[in-house]
Amino acid sequence: MLPIAKTLKQGKRGILERLDAGEIVIGDGGFVFALEKRGYVKAGPWTPEATVEHPEAVRQLHREFLRAGSNVLQTFTFYASEDKLENRGNYVAEKISCQKVNEAACDIAREVANEGDALVAGGVSQTPSYLSCKDKAEVKAVFRKQLDIFTKKNVDFLIAEYFEHVEEAVWAVEVLKESGKPVAATMCIGPEGDMHGVPPGQCAVQLVKAGASIIGVNCHFDPDTALETVKLMKEGLQAAKLKAHLMTQPLAFHTPDCGKQGFIDLPEFPFGLEPRIVTRWDVQKYARKAYDLGIRYIGGCCGFEPYHIRAIAEELAPERGFLPEASEKHGSWGNSLSMHTKPWVRARARKEYWENLKPASGRPYCPSMSKPDGWGVTKGARELMQQKEATTEQQLKELFQKQKF
Amino acid sequence: MLPIAKTLKQGKRGILERLDAGEIVIGDGGFVFALEKRGYVKAGPWTPEATVEHPEAVRQLHREFLRAGSNVLQTFTFYASEDKLENRGNYVAEKISCQKVNEAACDIAREVANEGDALVAGGVSQTPSYLSCKDKAEVKAVFRKQLDIFTKKNVDFLIAEYFEHVEEAVWAVEVLKESGKPVAATMCIGPEGDMHGVPPGQCAVQLVKAGASIIGVNCHFDPDTALETVKLMKEGLQAAKLKAHLMTQPLAFHTPDCGKQGFIDLPEFPFGLEPRIVTRWDVQKYARKAYDLGIRYIGGCCGFEPYHIRAIAEELAPERGFLPEASEKHGSWGNSLSMHTKPWVRARARKEYWENLKPASGRPYCPSMSKPDGWGVTKGARELMQQKEATTEQQLKELFQKQKF
Amino acid sequence: MLPIAKTLKQGKRGILERLDAGEIVIGDGGFVFALEKRGYVKAGPWTPEATVEHPEAVRQLHREFLRAGSNVLQTFTFYASEDKLENRGNYVAEKISCQKVNEAACDIAREVANEGDALVAGGVSQTPSYLSCKDKAEVKAVFRKQLDIFTKKNVDFLIAEYFEHVEEAVWAVEVLKESGKPVAATMCIGPEGDMHGVPPGQCAVQLVKAGASIIGVNCHFDPDTALETVKLMKEGLQAAKLKAHLMTQPLAFHTPDCGKQGFIDLPEFPFGLEPRIVTRWDVQKYARKAYDLGIRYIGGCCGFEPYHIRAIAEELAPERGFLPEASEKHGSWGNSLSMHTKPWVRARARKEYWENLKPASGRPYCPSMSKPDGWGVTKGARELMQQKEATTEQQLKELFQKQKF
Amino acid sequence: MLPIAKTLKQGKRGILERLDAGEIVIGDGGFVFALEKRGYVKAGPWTPEATVEHPEAVRQLHREFLRAGSNVLQTFTFYASEDKLENRGNYVAEKISCQKVNEAACDIAREVANEGDALVAGGVSQTPSYLSCKDKAEVKAVFRKQLDIFTKKNVDFLIAEYFEHVEEAVWAVEVLKESGKPVAATMCIGPEGDMHGVPPGQCAVQLVKAGASIIGVNCHFDPDTALETVKLMKEGLQAAKLKAHLMTQPLAFHTPDCGKQGFIDLPEFPFGLEPRIVTRWDVQKYARKAYDLGIRYIGGCCGFEPYHIRAIAEELAPERGFLPEASEKHGSWGNSLSMHTKPWVRARARKEYWENLKPASGRPYCPSMSKPDGWGVTKGARELMQQKEATTEQQLKELFQKQKF
Repeated sequence: MLPIAKTLKQGKRGILERLDAGEIVIGDGGFVFALEKRGYVKAGPWTPEATVEHPEAVRQLHREFLRAGSNVLQTFTFYASEDKLENRGNYVAEKISCQKVNEAACDIAREVANEGDALVAGGVSQTPSYLSCKDKAEVKAVFRKQLDIFTKKNVDFLIAEYFEHVEEAVWAVEVLKESGKPVAATMCIGPEGDMHGVPPGQCAVQLVKAGASIIGVNCHFDPDTALETVKLMKEGLQAAKLKAHLMTQPLAFHTPDCGKQGFIDLPEFPFGLEPRIVTRWDVQKYARKAYDLGIRYIGGCCGFEPYHIRAIAEELAPERGFLPEASEKHGSWGNSLSMHTKPWVRARARKEYWENLKPASGRPYCPSMSKPDGWGVTKGARELMQQKEATTEQQLKELFQKQKF
Repeated sequence: MLPIAKTLKQGKRGILERLDAGEIVIGDGGFVFALEKRGYVKAGPWTPEATVEHPEAVRQLHREFLRAGSNVLQTFTFYASEDKLENRGNYVAEKISCQKVNEAACDIAREVANEGDALVAGGVSQTPSYLSCKDKAEVKAVFRKQLDIFTKKNVDFLIAEYFEHVEEAVWAVEVLKESGKPVAATMCIGPEGDMHGVPPGQCAVQLVKAGASIIGVNCHFDPDTALETVKLMKEGLQAAKLKAHLMTQPLAFHTPDCGKQGFIDLPEFPFGLEPRIVTRWDVQKYARKAYDLGIRYIGGCCGFEPYHIRAIAEELAPERGFLPEASEKHGSWGNSLSMHTKPWVRARARKEYWENLKPASGRPYCPSMSKPDGWGVTKGARELMQQKEATTEQQLKELFQKQKF
Repeated sequence: MLPIAKTLKQGKRGILERLDAGEIVIGDGGFVFALEKRGYVKAGPWTPEATVEHPEAVRQLHREFLRAGSNVLQTFTFYASEDKLENRGNYVAEKISCQKVNEAACDIAREVANEGDALVAGGVSQTPSYLSCKDKAEVKAVFRKQLDIFTKKNVDFLIAEYFEHVEEAVWAVEVLKESGKPVAATMCIGPEGDMHGVPPGQCAVQLVKAGASIIGVNCHFDPDTALETVKLMKEGLQAAKLKAHLMTQPLAFHTPDCGKQGFIDLPEFPFGLEPRIVTRWDVQKYARKAYDLGIRYIGGCCGFEPYHIRAIAEELAPERGFLPEASEKHGSWGNSLSMHTKPWVRARARKEYWENLKPASGRPYCPSMSKPDGWGVTKGARELMQQKEATTEQQLKELFQKQKF
Repeated sequence: MLPIAKTLKQGKRGILERLDAGEIVIGDGGFVFALEKRGYVKAGPWTPEATVEHPEAVRQLHREFLRAGSNVLQTFTFYASEDKLENRGNYVAEKISCQKVNEAACDIAREVANEGDALVAGGVSQTPSYLSCKDKAEVKAVFRKQLDIFTKKNVDFLIAEYFEHVEEAVWAVEVLKESGKPVAATMCIGPEGDMHGVPPGQCAVQLVKAGASIIGVNCHFDPDTALETVKLMKEGLQAAKLKAHLMTQPLAFHTPDCGKQGFIDLPEFPFGLEPRIVTRWDVQKYARKAYDLGIRYIGGCCGFEPYHIRAIAEELAPERGFLPEASEKHGSWGNSLSMHTKPWVRARARKEYWENLKPASGRPYCPSMSKPDGWGVTKGARELMQQKEATTEQQLKELFQKQKF
């Protein structure tokens, strides 16, 4: 058996040092979804005030990802820009400042990172300011506010993630580059490209030109779709004779049926996604495919729990030469079942079994695919709905009643 | 809106005091499954050495259940009998004594219980000693060893849970009663009864006669099946003119397709159960049905995460007059979506939507139902397999290859 | 290979002569459904005026069943009682008398039966007169009118089929027995029994006591459910120390999800049943199970096409010693594929392949099970609906709109 | 209500006369599949010797399509080329000559066509000669042999159908054009193009240049996929500034999961396709979409039964001004249910109900999608399999056993 990582600590090296050396870097999983289920994040606003309100819960989740094999701990600063926190302020029990949330996030991540040899990455994500058409200077100011804290707290590198528009992502990268630290940039887009129709390959080119050393996608789509998108990004870079490291942090949900905007438009989002959750074996397949595609920064986003991250580390253990700490509590490919009392359960202690299993949902009244909400909406209804100002709740209800699903 | 529980603390009252007064008592969720996913428990042995190895992880999970509304924190002593721990000893990194595991479990549960007004319940479960046909005195000695620690640590009451044979459950209840504390007893059986064919109604009668004040089922079956079984138990007690409080702690997996031994025999157990995970809305329906059936101790077992427990507390909030702490981060029936930017996502912020959703699995190559492993096994194969001693791994493989699935 | 039946004609023997000798008798398939798809029967009224309007279409269908192996050709007189034809008269292009329909049906069946060695069975089914609470004498008069024609046309034996109430079935048997010919009786009930709650075992007893020599079930449920019901009938007879031959003519649709009234209440009835159609391999399994249960009159009802009947004959060919004519155009268990050009299609030319295939629906947006319409109807709505007179179309629509599915 | 077609006969006009006038022409359905189920065609060889052996069965099927609304009756000459019949000769009970089969097919089609105002189309399809690499002259000679009979029997026009390679289709068109009659040409390809990789648009251009007046696709794919392919053909013609009438005759099976070679590669082909059968409502949607796409020759192929063809005629009845004869036995959109005794069945007598129904399969152990056989085959296995000569049955079995599905 391969050695457990704990015994291998070799002193910290930077993200680019690792990637340039051809090493695999394992990301972490999805904080807002995991902490929503644990009772610390509210679906809808999805803001990270838990860093101040319940640091022990955030710390524990970081620790679980570290044990599972994460080499990077992202500060829990998703949607922690000042404009977003204010916008959703009414959901926060006691008003908690943007500065406090970001600072606490950095402190917690660093504390846990030091328990192993993980790096801390400060993260920014898309802003309400951009969506409400504020200008470049204003949007950049929002990012800069978070960057100041990341700089003060001396994070190891920076990630601009969850951007639907490459224009905003480029602005974020430009700001983050001011720090002199390495910058990664991931967009939450699928193969159809960003919300303005910029194809993935072109998004990749713009991000690298803006200064990102690592590019890819996160969130919104399942692992297969995410890899398809990164492949297009890779081809875009090759065509433009540009170089960058590739990165992917997809959903842990199967979403073959979603449209351009990803899982948000699926009727199950966000409270009925359970039957779509990927298994650890799905993750092992994903990790292998990602590796074969040349991606070396491999992690997860919404839905990824610690055991999903461990599955990446276990799949790629032969390449890396070691297993993560949490593998002390896991037998590769189910081999911990080999001591089960029933022979037919013992018979599941093998790779072929789990690799080929087609897991049943136990839900005979449910279909396997959904229609994204957009599909069922008539053109008139959609237009009216998109004119947000004009759509009262009453109008909305009437529109929905008129539609046939 | 109903008040949040935190503000309502009223001094601790005992389990029977609460149930006798007609109050709803909310149990906690499944520790071995939750901690397996977090990286602290090994599937197969399923033993709780994490109480010693990683108390912070156990503490955090207790805390999440408390916040979610649990009125009882069970000591994490599942499979912590001495014979079981020894039996599985080779899986434990450093040999950790039965005494240490049980003591640490009591201390952690008490520490967190004191953060709210929860009770601590010491738990015992079925033993290898019984399965290997040791006699009554020997099996009782195993339970008594754990009971001594529970007594020393002064837990509030005791639970004998996860018994497949009523005979062993009765022995456990008899031992636990020696403490003078209230005893609850739940079996992991379905409507077909225990593994010797004793029907649920009769199991219930035997448990109450042995001294249990609270009886019911836990684990092995989905909420609907569990309720069916408890209904049969209730009818058994009524026919025998006996009285007891009713309790249910089912799986958080849909298992309409499983046989007498429950989800263990499903091909997805334990690493491919994801598509079967119940939603929070499924749990609300379960809580309501349990309540309507007269059950007042309502909790969960394997698969129940904190948000599932919160769903019980939210469904029964009108009856109880308050919400759990974690509801600060949850809008009832999805109402936190009412501020989403897309009107069609806002349209999901209502009870009717989630109540009627048939969630898709996103897995078009997977069926909705599985055949329990037993089904596909020919009679000859099954007999041979049940002669455990005779079944080498090689024989087993050959047997499986001959079968048609 | 077994010989083809054609070469084996041995002179006609009566139905009881065959069954008493332990022979297998193969019934025919479903005329109303098959001819609806061919354009000669109207769904809703389901009446058999085609015997007069388009005798060539009826003749051809009889011939196909004969070729497929049917030993009995039932006159196409389903719903051909005078009260039913009049009731549905407005659907019949030109008014066609009950006498003409029944006479033509007898003539066509006899003509085709003589092309082989099949028997002709005259059939009656449940009447509007019974449902509108006419008395015993009136209902019997309706049956007698059809019987007079069957007697005149000298059919070989008689079948009372598709009865939901055992009381009416008994009346039918009593009338048919007046002819002195053998009488078979099948009810369209499931394991829950008839619409007044009489269990299958008791229905069987009453039918045999009334004079039926062959009893069983037809229509309304899938093969598995039908066999379950016949098993209960068999047990009822055994308990009462009565003897009769057993018969089964189920649907060719999978209906695990239907309630007491069978497939009528499934939302797919009658125009969306396609995905439920059984394969020829499902039929082979059914024929084998029926045979093993001691049933010797094995046929089909709605949905059974000629190739389904052939599957019965092929499955039981080893017991019978010969194959049906239509097997000239069919290789057992797919062996006609052995000459296909693609090796992977040739690989399907074997029993194991088809026996174990789990056929996909190609419908990823459809569930595997439906809720019978009754389920979703609130108690108030159901009561109102059952008061037929009070339910205007408008009220009905309102009721349905109020319901949640 | 619209008048029934029968009363409208107006004298026969040619196929181009009709299409040039903008009329809708309705094709017929799939003979080999329908007659296989009726017991007259053998799956595997799929040859049409029934025209000689059982003319009454072929005549009846033609008649049903005519009643259902078909304006064209295709001679049942699929796979009736001399090389094919000889190749499969061992399956034909008594050796029946190519000439007899083709002549009988023409006579039967003409007889039934004269019962209404339908046209007779003589059809040729792909040949073993082409697949075994015979040269152009040899392949053309095969087609010419059938054409001589069509000319003698004076069919109204000609169809070259079911071609996987555009090269062979072009040769067929060139031969058929020698007759001076109008020629239609349909290929059994999907959006990926023919087996040599020629895209649909280019296939269309070649066929029109070769002399086809009507082009499109038949067989191999479901209606949605077929329309997608015809759309590409239409665009190809537009780009090349060519004109032709468009035609489509798809499968009556849902096949979203099939690959380039269509339903042949699906594991359910040909004996487990039942759950994929399209409903009449699916066909109405198809007819409407085809019409909206500008297609005016709309029919069906394998799986299309008479009621499916009627659904085309009913959907387009408003445009045509009349209904087919078989609509005497069908209420539009289920309205014949309006007299049902149960109110909830009566409630199904409306368009919205059937249009929105998601029909269940009643098969909870079956998935919704299959993997075409090719997918699961390892590269080595596929290569070996494609070297037909080298693949003994034994090798094949071993190869399949090694694969993981």
